Amino acid sequence: MAQAHQKQSTFPPYELLYHPGIPGRGEFIRLAFEAAGVPYTDVANDSKDGYGIVQKTCMNDGTESSDGNPPVFSPPALRVPGAGKTGKVLVISQTPNILFYLGDKLGLVPEDDEDAKFHVNQIALTALDLNNEVHDTHHPIAVMQYYEEQKPEAVKKARDVRENRIPKFYSYFERTLKGNEAGQGKYLVGGKLTYADLTVWQVVDGIKFAFPRESEALEKTFPQLMVAFYRGVREEKGVKEYLGSGRRLKYSMGVFRHYPELDRQD
Amino acid sequence: MAQAHQKQSTFPPYELLYHPGIPGRGEFIRLAFEAAGVPYTDVANDSKDGYGIVQKTCMNDGTESSDGNPPVFSPPALRVPGAGKTGKVLVISQTPNILFYLGDKLGLVPEDDEDAKFHVNQIALTALDLNNEVHDTHHPIAVMQYYEEQKPEAVKKARDVRENRIPKFYSYFERTLKGNEAGQGKYLVGGKLTYADLTVWQVVDGIKFAFPRESEALEKTFPQLMVAFYRGVREEKGVKEYLGSGRRLKYSMGVFRHYPELDRQD
Repeated sequence: MAQAHQKQSTFPPYELLYHPGIPGRGEFIRLAFEAAGVPYTDVANDSKDGYGIVQKTCMNDGTESSDGNPPVFSPPALRVPGAGKTGKVLVISQTPNILFYLGDKLGLVPEDDEDAKFHVNQIALTALDLNNEVHDTHHPIAVMQYYEEQKPEAVKKARDVRENRIPKFYSYFERTLKGNEAGQGKYLVGGKLTYADLTVWQVVDGIKFAFPRESEALEKTFPQLMVAFYRGVREEKGVKEYLGSGRRLKYSMGVFRHYPELDRQD
Repeated sequence: MAQAHQKQSTFPPYELLYHPGIPGRGEFIRLAFEAAGVPYTDVANDSKDGYGIVQKTCMNDGTESSDGNPPVFSPPALRVPGAGKTGKVLVISQTPNILFYLGDKLGLVPEDDEDAKFHVNQIALTALDLNNEVHDTHHPIAVMQYYEEQKPEAVKKARDVRENRIPKFYSYFERTLKGNEAGQGKYLVGGKLTYADLTVWQVVDGIKFAFPRESEALEKTFPQLMVAFYRGVREEKGVKEYLGSGRRLKYSMGVFRHYPELDRQD
């Protein structure tokens, strides 16, 4: 439970169901709660038998996740007691789906602006596509095999992602920042923090960890994104507190991994 | 323009912006309009200079797509004159974002059931993830290089996707169908057609084209998905008319490609 952020509120007891010990795709959901200052339980990390609940709900072979909700393909999932039809438990999955669901409720989309909500969503979806492509730099062939079994392919894939894909995505984020006058270079959509900002920030941060040399070289080309925006999001109240807390997990063997041989070599 | 489906309505003049000549990711949007019987313009295929408009809107290097909307990372995009703030043109992108936007408006989500809308969305997102993984079977290393330049890696990647990934996704769809009593094995969420059904159907259909031998072998394991559901969606009124029309483009060099060496060999 994010104790530091508990406050009087009408929020339901949100539960994040994800693997323990890694930021992974769960991190996009954590950042949304933390930036909004809304309490949530990180089930696998917050209790001893938490991962058993995650596995039972999200990784079973049955025809439902739990409580009459459809199966979950893969964590993360969000469990919300009392939010479902006629007061039941609601379970939804897929990272961008959870973010879209929470966006309104956590105040992480512009209010009363339907257009802007879909613009926020398209940017978050694009950042999550980049997240997947970066994952594939160390697992280009088979997700269930070890990195060491696909290292020659990983070197090739990482080079393409670093040299072609990351710049294409970063150019899009840079241009979006520049085109959003209301955001003054700090926000991608509108004049305050949205989950698009958090999602893009997390991917840029992960890429800085995975490819520090490439990231350093890219700063000159994308200063709005990689310097002004990146630093600005890090200083947002809820984000700053979270990043300084023990709840922020270290990158290790998840989506973002640092293998020096996959980074820029010159 | 989908002439066969024109009817009196209050729908705005929806425009699909996508590459010409291939089904690709645009096909998920086409299927939604066609199944709903709602008119739309397929800009690049319907007029001689249409692709110029797509390129100018979706593939420019500027800080907006058009009409004050943020840039588009990549087609498809949806252009809706009159739908934006204060009567402006709205442009949104990212396939699942467009489907979520249209779901309500085209009657392709259960009515008055917020939970079900997020369940529809999570299933569509998962099918689109599988779509991406199948794309990567012929382009595991670099999307801008030729297949022939990455064929050894493609053979390895395709084997993993066929043997491990497709069965994992198909099991999820099969179990979702079985768990949804209201759908009687025909629909993934609720008791009538949603864009989750259309999106899953398109991916199963594309995989049948790309990997016919593997698909045939999988039918025994996933009969609900690959036989009952697959045939049922194909017989839905709008879908059936569309598939028999010239508007349904043939698979060729897009996401779904048939290279016999990437299919099951025994």
